[in-house]
Amino acid sequence: MTDLENELRAAIRTIPDYPKPGILFRDITTLLGAPRAFRRSIDELVHPYAGLQVSKIAGIEARGFILGGAMAHQLSAGFVPIRKKGKLPHDTVRVAYSLEYGVDEMEMHRDAIMEGESVILVDDLIATGGTAEGAVKLLRQMGANIVAACFVIDLPDLGGRKKLEDLGVQVRTLVSYEGH
Amino acid sequence: MTDLENELRAAIRTIPDYPKPGILFRDITTLLGAPRAFRRSIDELVHPYAGLQVSKIAGIEARGFILGGAMAHQLSAGFVPIRKKGKLPHDTVRVAYSLEYGVDEMEMHRDAIMEGESVILVDDLIATGGTAEGAVKLLRQMGANIVAACFVIDLPDLGGRKKLEDLGVQVRTLVSYEGH
Repeated sequence: MTDLENELRAAIRTIPDYPKPGILFRDITTLLGAPRAFRRSIDELVHPYAGLQVSKIAGIEARGFILGGAMAHQLSAGFVPIRKKGKLPHDTVRVAYSLEYGVDEMEMHRDAIMEGESVILVDDLIATGGTAEGAVKLLRQMGANIVAACFVIDLPDLGGRKKLEDLGVQVRTLVSYEGH
Repeated sequence: MTDLENELRAAIRTIPDYPKPGILFRDITTLLGAPRAFRRSIDELVHPYAGLQVSKIAGIEARGFILGGAMAHQLSAGFVPIRKKGKLPHDTVRVAYSLEYGVDEMEMHRDAIMEGESVILVDDLIATGGTAEGAVKLLRQMGANIVAACFVIDLPDLGGRKKLEDLGVQVRTLVSYEGH
């Protein structure tokens, strides 16, 4: 395990039985609040893309906004919010996505991405990948070239990384919890 | 009007009659999506604090997360989310705040700020200041030293800036719309 991964693991709080019995919740707020761990996370997420003219960072509401804002500023890219339905004020595109129980819908402004733009997708954690898959569909519907999907935490046993890779998306994560 | 203010005004979209007739909604998503305007906004918001050892940036859900993540990274500070009730996984402090109609509650993790820490509060816009006032109360309850409250957009006629200044908080904004 790398020095960075050790530092990030130490900064992530694990909350047993949240939101329900038997679940180990990986709480990233303690990492966000640790200046060095947060700074290193962002720097590590963006460094492969520093020379690549990434046009937009698309962040998934809400924790993806925190990481994505920092990544966009660091890469001198624009930031595009992907939100739960009904929260964006202008004309949107919408897609349904799978949750653990049932489905929900997410939206992006229709004019937020132009055909052919290079976009990095970001969220704090990838588990089953339902939300990220929805975001990939939205971005591709607008003609985005998805350079990568970035997450601080990977729960590989839940299959989300594989789901995105099967869609042809390059996935970048910093910390992996097997057996979640 | 400064060159920066002109650029930011040009990047902010105004949506008439949203969310209801007679309201001019100032939509910051177009500014966030414009790489140069976003970068300049963050740089301008943080530059007075670059040498001040700010410990945490507290961002108000959800658009304050985008700005606050970038500011925290740029200042090598930690980021603290202030969220609507029921969304944070660990032990929280909670405060009621005024909305246009009625009240709601916001929360912060109890261990997110330590007594005496220097904190900058951030959101995209200050209007009546009800949300920001709630956030100030939360932060002070935890013993934070509030260095400033930062917003990209000020709607001064709605009184929020004055409300915060009357609480002894220094307010920093980049673009002001009189008559909102």
